[in-house]
Amino acid sequence: MNALVAQSGGPTAVINGSVFGILEGAIMTEGIDKVYGGINGIEGIMSGQIIDLTEWDGKKRTTFLYSPSSGLGSCRYKLPDINRDGPDLDGLEVMNQEYHRIFTILEDYEIACFFYIGGNDSMDTIYKLSEYGRWIGSPIRFIGIPKTVDNDLYGTDHCPGYGSAAKYIIRSIMEMAHDANVYPQKSVHIVEVMGRHAGWLAAATVMARYGTKRAVDLIYLPELPFSLSRFLHDVEVKLKRKSHVIVVVSEGLRKSNGEFVASEEGHESDRFGYRKMGGVATYLAQELKVSFHQSKSQVNGLDQSLSSCKVVAVELGILQRGSIYHASRTDLYEAVNCGYHGLLFALQGISGQMVVMDREPDQPYHIHYRHIPIEEAAGKEKTVPRELINQRGNHMKENFLDYIRPLIQGNVEIPEKEGLPLFIGDEALNNHYVYK
Amino acid sequence: MNALVAQSGGPTAVINGSVFGILEGAIMTEGIDKVYGGINGIEGIMSGQIIDLTEWDGKKRTTFLYSPSSGLGSCRYKLPDINRDGPDLDGLEVMNQEYHRIFTILEDYEIACFFYIGGNDSMDTIYKLSEYGRWIGSPIRFIGIPKTVDNDLYGTDHCPGYGSAAKYIIRSIMEMAHDANVYPQKSVHIVEVMGRHAGWLAAATVMARYGTKRAVDLIYLPELPFSLSRFLHDVEVKLKRKSHVIVVVSEGLRKSNGEFVASEEGHESDRFGYRKMGGVATYLAQELKVSFHQSKSQVNGLDQSLSSCKVVAVELGILQRGSIYHASRTDLYEAVNCGYHGLLFALQGISGQMVVMDREPDQPYHIHYRHIPIEEAAGKEKTVPRELINQRGNHMKENFLDYIRPLIQGNVEIPEKEGLPLFIGDEALNNHYVYK
Repeated sequence: MNALVAQSGGPTAVINGSVFGILEGAIMTEGIDKVYGGINGIEGIMSGQIIDLTEWDGKKRTTFLYSPSSGLGSCRYKLPDINRDGPDLDGLEVMNQEYHRIFTILEDYEIACFFYIGGNDSMDTIYKLSEYGRWIGSPIRFIGIPKTVDNDLYGTDHCPGYGSAAKYIIRSIMEMAHDANVYPQKSVHIVEVMGRHAGWLAAATVMARYGTKRAVDLIYLPELPFSLSRFLHDVEVKLKRKSHVIVVVSEGLRKSNGEFVASEEGHESDRFGYRKMGGVATYLAQELKVSFHQSKSQVNGLDQSLSSCKVVAVELGILQRGSIYHASRTDLYEAVNCGYHGLLFALQGISGQMVVMDREPDQPYHIHYRHIPIEEAAGKEKTVPRELINQRGNHMKENFLDYIRPLIQGNVEIPEKEGLPLFIGDEALNNHYVYK
Repeated sequence: MNALVAQSGGPTAVINGSVFGILEGAIMTEGIDKVYGGINGIEGIMSGQIIDLTEWDGKKRTTFLYSPSSGLGSCRYKLPDINRDGPDLDGLEVMNQEYHRIFTILEDYEIACFFYIGGNDSMDTIYKLSEYGRWIGSPIRFIGIPKTVDNDLYGTDHCPGYGSAAKYIIRSIMEMAHDANVYPQKSVHIVEVMGRHAGWLAAATVMARYGTKRAVDLIYLPELPFSLSRFLHDVEVKLKRKSHVIVVVSEGLRKSNGEFVASEEGHESDRFGYRKMGGVATYLAQELKVSFHQSKSQVNGLDQSLSSCKVVAVELGILQRGSIYHASRTDLYEAVNCGYHGLLFALQGISGQMVVMDREPDQPYHIHYRHIPIEEAAGKEKTVPRELINQRGNHMKENFLDYIRPLIQGNVEIPEKEGLPLFIGDEALNNHYVYK
């Protein structure tokens, strides 16, 4: 009886931890012979890109654990809906040919448990597979393992990947605050972080400190409609009190009519209509410069000093989701445990479920692992509750600190040689396909 | 007999190390009573923003050491030329009023040694001060302490700040390479790093590895004229052999006519003519997309696959110069030592000199600290020698590894509390001015 594990959706710094948890668990416990790895998620599995992870020695497994991003590759592939209205069984196989193909491969490999590590969309994939399996009477167990830097999966206290991305962003902003403060000239730094629909990553920056004070002056989340005039006013009010202002914005800020702020009319897109890099921060920086230059300051007496104010847009980019050097040990440990508990649940015969983390209400911080039906999580989004955001909608309330603080604790020591990390390369994956 | 130290120009991750070296040195050795810190460089000193660093206890000094960026603030202030053609002494004081003001303050504080930590422009400042001092017969000793992430200071093997910035960039690109490789879809990442005139930081990325291979496929330095058509060709040739291509470019790439590539005609600038964020990488990404879409591929047979190739521009931004988490211990140690040796030289009566590092020719890596006349360094730029760049001008030769490897060795352990760094805040500086 074998297992298959694959990764899907955007990478995180600790997503390999969940593969590691399944693999180490299978080695330690009875019941699983081989653990196969599907390359590039369900898309790669359909084309037979499958490798035998149980061939890896301990050193390779550890190197894999401490390598950032989806070591087995990823995909953004959406399975079609299951078609249950065929003329006969053969007809149904033709009409559901992708499912038929996948299940044929799973049976060829004698897969008893299929683990899929991903976010909302990936949970849709594993849900459909488990539904199809149930329908055709397959004994294969399907388990979803949560991961997303966006922290927007429903049914779990938080998601593996979030704590590390948050820690990267918080530390980067703390380093940036020191850079911003070196010149006497007034400045505004607008830092854009990931979060298309949920502002958990932007919210986390309430943790960032400059000395004993908050490093971030204003935080705008996609959960609340964004008003440009209020933003300009907020910044000018802050500049009245201090010389260096740091603003954090989620990439997915929307106006009250639901449109993305960054795709607002007048915002440039390139010759093919691609949205430019650094959408919302760059746009807001431009608007701020216009406001300062036109001296249409809503706060009196500031015009003179603001015309020379430096405005910098910073997009943290893909490093925020894949920096193992800034990973939280708590997060990595939980990623491993989500994989491991997924394996235990599968061995108990459980299927069609996603592993979730419950936070025990008592101190100290403790996580209880359990599972919920995947359909409860698939396709839903958990956003930042209004009651954690301040009244004006431009910062977090202090009690959000209780939520985020435990998630960023502990550092990860990266195996290194000559000052550089020993990450796993694609040598570990390519030319090792075992599909017959 | 007191000392004054100030920082100038762009911050680095380890620039506080040189202040620390002077301060610890003064505490350990005889001859210096107080070490004052000038806030915001020479500009702040002229307005009397001076604090007493010898009041700091050991804990505060250590916190300062491990805090990134110029903890004493910085400036980009250029002193006027010295006017030696006055009608009489009083007239000369009026005509050189900034110098007169500075020397009055230095005398008020009984400063015997003035240390200025900075790059090319800062060396110009300390050179002019030392010249003025010599002219008026002042006994004050002026010492320049090198620092720059650009590594372009003349007369020293390398500059404090460079190794840490290089290490940040190398590690970030290694993490990025893992992100770039997760999807099967072809991709090109164009990473823009600092370097307006010298490409040392871009060159350092030859160290970055993806598994056992080089992570960076193409490197373009400002030392060589940039050809867009050659660049497009180079990328397409790489894409023939591999799916994911990483290109590193210095921000200061220039065309053969000397113009900056990023300010090329047709490149967008905002409503006030500011150069847009992410100049050269964004520009090249656009050009690459145009090239892929128009199928004007210079290499046959690639057009089909390239039209869906993802092109991502990444600007590493200010984090590359101020990330203490990625600092090289060697670099921090050398920054401290440059400060410390500067103090020792000053105590020997030396003035008008800049501390430099000589690399001993023998293995293992060893640095010898000495000093050169500041005028040998001020205003000059050390660029990457042609013989270290490959023949086609799109990558480094392997022997450059021998230069860069020792500079990034060792990690720095950052004092932390609750998962976040304990950096010094401006509480340490503000409201502590001691000027009478």
